Amino acid sequence: MKAVRVHAYNQAPALDEVPDPELSGPHDVIVKIGGAGLCRTDLHIIEGQWAEISGVGLPYVIGHENAGWVTEVGSAVTNVAVGDTVILHPTPTCGLCHACRAGDDMHCVNSTFPGINTNGGMAEYLLTHARACIKLADHLQPADVAALADAGITAYHAARKAVPLLYPGTHCVVVGAGGLGHIGIQSLAALTATEITVLDRNHDALKLAEQLGAHHTVEADGSHVEAITEITGGGAQVVLDFVGEQGAEKEAPSLLANGGSHFVIGYGGALDLDTIQIVSREINVIGNLVGTYNDLVELMNLAGRGLVTLHTQTYALDAVRDAIADLENGRIRGRGILVP
Amino acid sequence: MKAVRVHAYNQAPALDEVPDPELSGPHDVIVKIGGAGLCRTDLHIIEGQWAEISGVGLPYVIGHENAGWVTEVGSAVTNVAVGDTVILHPTPTCGLCHACRAGDDMHCVNSTFPGINTNGGMAEYLLTHARACIKLADHLQPADVAALADAGITAYHAARKAVPLLYPGTHCVVVGAGGLGHIGIQSLAALTATEITVLDRNHDALKLAEQLGAHHTVEADGSHVEAITEITGGGAQVVLDFVGEQGAEKEAPSLLANGGSHFVIGYGGALDLDTIQIVSREINVIGNLVGTYNDLVELMNLAGRGLVTLHTQTYALDAVRDAIADLENGRIRGRGILVP
Amino acid sequence: MKAVRVHAYNQAPALDEVPDPELSGPHDVIVKIGGAGLCRTDLHIIEGQWAEISGVGLPYVIGHENAGWVTEVGSAVTNVAVGDTVILHPTPTCGLCHACRAGDDMHCVNSTFPGINTNGGMAEYLLTHARACIKLADHLQPADVAALADAGITAYHAARKAVPLLYPGTHCVVVGAGGLGHIGIQSLAALTATEITVLDRNHDALKLAEQLGAHHTVEADGSHVEAITEITGGGAQVVLDFVGEQGAEKEAPSLLANGGSHFVIGYGGALDLDTIQIVSREINVIGNLVGTYNDLVELMNLAGRGLVTLHTQTYALDAVRDAIADLENGRIRGRGILVP
Amino acid sequence: MKAVRVHAYNQAPALDEVPDPELSGPHDVIVKIGGAGLCRTDLHIIEGQWAEISGVGLPYVIGHENAGWVTEVGSAVTNVAVGDTVILHPTPTCGLCHACRAGDDMHCVNSTFPGINTNGGMAEYLLTHARACIKLADHLQPADVAALADAGITAYHAARKAVPLLYPGTHCVVVGAGGLGHIGIQSLAALTATEITVLDRNHDALKLAEQLGAHHTVEADGSHVEAITEITGGGAQVVLDFVGEQGAEKEAPSLLANGGSHFVIGYGGALDLDTIQIVSREINVIGNLVGTYNDLVELMNLAGRGLVTLHTQTYALDAVRDAIADLENGRIRGRGILVP
Repeated sequence: MKAVRVHAYNQAPALDEVPDPELSGPHDVIVKIGGAGLCRTDLHIIEGQWAEISGVGLPYVIGHENAGWVTEVGSAVTNVAVGDTVILHPTPTCGLCHACRAGDDMHCVNSTFPGINTNGGMAEYLLTHARACIKLADHLQPADVAALADAGITAYHAARKAVPLLYPGTHCVVVGAGGLGHIGIQSLAALTATEITVLDRNHDALKLAEQLGAHHTVEADGSHVEAITEITGGGAQVVLDFVGEQGAEKEAPSLLANGGSHFVIGYGGALDLDTIQIVSREINVIGNLVGTYNDLVELMNLAGRGLVTLHTQTYALDAVRDAIADLENGRIRGRGILVP
Repeated sequence: MKAVRVHAYNQAPALDEVPDPELSGPHDVIVKIGGAGLCRTDLHIIEGQWAEISGVGLPYVIGHENAGWVTEVGSAVTNVAVGDTVILHPTPTCGLCHACRAGDDMHCVNSTFPGINTNGGMAEYLLTHARACIKLADHLQPADVAALADAGITAYHAARKAVPLLYPGTHCVVVGAGGLGHIGIQSLAALTATEITVLDRNHDALKLAEQLGAHHTVEADGSHVEAITEITGGGAQVVLDFVGEQGAEKEAPSLLANGGSHFVIGYGGALDLDTIQIVSREINVIGNLVGTYNDLVELMNLAGRGLVTLHTQTYALDAVRDAIADLENGRIRGRGILVP
Repeated sequence: MKAVRVHAYNQAPALDEVPDPELSGPHDVIVKIGGAGLCRTDLHIIEGQWAEISGVGLPYVIGHENAGWVTEVGSAVTNVAVGDTVILHPTPTCGLCHACRAGDDMHCVNSTFPGINTNGGMAEYLLTHARACIKLADHLQPADVAALADAGITAYHAARKAVPLLYPGTHCVVVGAGGLGHIGIQSLAALTATEITVLDRNHDALKLAEQLGAHHTVEADGSHVEAITEITGGGAQVVLDFVGEQGAEKEAPSLLANGGSHFVIGYGGALDLDTIQIVSREINVIGNLVGTYNDLVELMNLAGRGLVTLHTQTYALDAVRDAIADLENGRIRGRGILVP
Repeated sequence: MKAVRVHAYNQAPALDEVPDPELSGPHDVIVKIGGAGLCRTDLHIIEGQWAEISGVGLPYVIGHENAGWVTEVGSAVTNVAVGDTVILHPTPTCGLCHACRAGDDMHCVNSTFPGINTNGGMAEYLLTHARACIKLADHLQPADVAALADAGITAYHAARKAVPLLYPGTHCVVVGAGGLGHIGIQSLAALTATEITVLDRNHDALKLAEQLGAHHTVEADGSHVEAITEITGGGAQVVLDFVGEQGAEKEAPSLLANGGSHFVIGYGGALDLDTIQIVSREINVIGNLVGTYNDLVELMNLAGRGLVTLHTQTYALDAVRDAIADLENGRIRGRGILVP
């Protein structure tokens, strides 16, 4: 089969001919890829930023946002069957550790991350595990939803955790209306009746945010903290921070009402927060890491009902270098998807 | 190996020589049994009460409360190893359905129930699954904890679910101080600072309840509702009903404070409750079914620290008929345990 | 001022001239009534059904769903001011007991119920308490929202309590699409992304339900349990039972998935439920009583944003007997509102 | 009456003769002080550190941890009566704002803080409000529990919020075994079955911690992070940080397991935490501010049952300068209590 493989860091990946993957264990599943999302993380992998963390051997197949159709299943697989359309949870988990037994997939102590530390989905076929497979509604196309497998689940997970805090009368500020932010806005609008205010530097992103459910939009222009304080009547109960760097992470507490919570999703920066602020205002900082298998099941329910949608731009597998160039040069609107 | 098998209903089970079980799948585990609890359910199985529900073919090995030592593991088993002391969750689950993915083992749509609908643990060896195995602390003996695998987990599950309702100043009434009730009392004492009142007909059971953490005990003598109303200052926030029949289930609402919850664990009777009572008092009825894998992990933590203990009476495997006769005739104090 | 008073049971209330109410305590508030809802409970009061329970002395002013404008406030009132438009929580509470201190207004041990056990709002003015007053958005009219003060809060309270159970992929069945049911449907649609199925005998009520957010509607025609089982894929996670009598309360468990919860809101009938059902399916019965002050604040947020609306039919205060006759004869669509 | 008043900052307070307080509103309560706790905050007040924040006019009576006996009540007071022994919540609240209506006293928008921004309890009598009063069990003495009114409630509030995270098998690290820490340890031991590890620099404090329920104690000696990682098997689910300065606040994340929560209670320092840490480990930082009225009710339940105790050292009111000198010079074991 054809597969996009990294052979050396800081070098464009190649489209190789490699053997088709084969079943070996009873929970193994082979998926014919229908769409594999291209993500900034792929650029970072190529640059070698993940080399040490992942410890992956080269060459290997990248692609960690995958959806397609099941073509073979191991003897113990009961949740999907040949012919099913599926999306794949990004980290197949062991199902045996304490975290797995609590439904807390991200803290599995034995998970893998295909496309990061083992072969991924920019290929015709992917070998995965029953515990990664989620059957999709018939009318959903893999290429349309593949990017929800990582970017989508991450935004949804944070919004979902915030639901108990976001009863009617509350305010939620979404910082950053990019790919994750847009899923976050739609998730909030579907899951809650909170009032949603979106902050971004980009005017077009804010216009799209309005169409997706934002009640207020604010351009980051230096006076935005005052504007948000005014809109929220003194601060939001929740800030979903999809940026987490470049000062956004330090500004977030000033957007909160007393008792409020700063959900950190984006990263790169550092908190610098006096403990007197944390105590006297009784505010919280909440970490968010990708999401659980059931988070993705729920998100697929919303996607199947048209409540969460994605803008995508598709490329053939052999156009992978064009796709990468377009991503590097900001020429992709929404998410780039490789379709073998 | 030797195994206790039911050959025909309403006939004493036989101690048979059968082939040792063998591994077939990569998550299979063979356990040398160190203790198998004997339970009233075993009597009901022998009487044929479960024949239709379980659909099990005869002969088969009974025993659904099992603990022992791992002797063989399949290729994919990561949570236990040969030589480990283990207790077994009563219903090995699939790990693939929505309930399993939420940590809600009891609602797995593909689980089995060894000892009920497939071969169980009254034998020298048991074939089980990695997802049923919980590694025990070194100082715990299988024969001492086996009965926690079913009776214990059931009581613990209910007490654990009630924790958020049982803050200091609240009252919890435990109805029925038998095997399950005693675990319930110890679990409440370990998990909460609620005031515990135990109701039973049996004076000795109440004396033991006091030693295990009950703050008040009340003999069921006709004036007990008034006595409990007095002790609780108008009713309890939670009633843990380990009886669920013979009128206990109908009396429970009268032991509740407004806003309180009746946890049903025992069964056999029927609720007969006016909806005006439910609404005007805003009271709840909460179902409880065995418990999750992690419930049993937590209970083993308490057992390992001496916070939950069991009275047991051991029998050799070939004394199984004596054990059954003793259980039928009320001659077992605590739980009867078969030790191969 | 003019006031609608009951002078004797089973006799139409009279429109009397009575002294205006006066402030006596520092938390007292005088409200000029802008709308007072007429409810079946008013018919039951007139019939004497509440005589013993309420212990109220005759004559007295009825009307327990009230909204209007503040005309006078006591010295300690800080939450509303003269001129404010307000809706009134139905049970002014003490603010001192344990329930009040937990925000659990319905279990206040010192509350009153104006219109039931003391003078109510079918009058030009009502004497109430600061703790009952909720300031409304400027564009809301008392006559439009008054009925939310009791019927609305009750439906909202139940829907709100169910939110944690109603994540995407779940089903909620609303039994009874009358006045409360319609608010329940709108509340569910605003607060959750659950799939809503509405069951009623009345075709017109079901058509309105669809417009208000129901995804599926089922006419109660004898085959409805099968129809709902089919729609929900085996049962709903939550049944909101706005009927609670005439068999609805006994049928509700058969509409539930295992692990599901039957929320009882309507009343009149009785549960008849085997404990084996409760245990083996791990299902729950949840009582619901009116709602908290903050429930009503949240509902007013939804009403102010147009997310919850009510059909009303207004009557002048001196047309109270016409309004009562219309209600008795099923001639009111939505809620009848008296406007002084 | 006699009262300890601050006349000028950086000058010892004086014992003055002032008029007895008088009732003015219907919810007012006069309490004869039986014990007023002396706290480091009192030293800071005298040093003028609170002058600007509190805006209080001089002279005024200090003392913000108060208990005593009710001598007069306003006309609307229903929760306490003359002769009752009471402890006083530190911030009498309005009972009207959204926070009050949710039981979230610390976020009341109209509260006062007697002893900080208005006359406090180092006097023979204190004018307070019904909403501050908690009736004590008969056998509790004001001088024994007064310090629970502020230090105690603060430690309890944090421990109580952590309960859902602290199921059996988890670890909680208590950083700082001083006055608050000791209450925290006892609260954890009463409310949970978590394993408690206490970290402090002081050997005696650790010995006392063991007697109060700590399972492990670790001296802060430079190798303590490794020691705690070993004890907790890789990190704690919760760190209760009673220090919040001098590096403790920066070290806390390294004591956490992935998914864990750092509860900040002490203050003075600043977090310096990379967002990549927060995200990749999915850890949280939780603010904690004093506690609710019901928190103090619950703590008094534990105190009344002997589950939480305090070491105290009593002084006559006219020995206030000795008490202050003893506190400044580290000569008080436990808490200094002024007894008029």
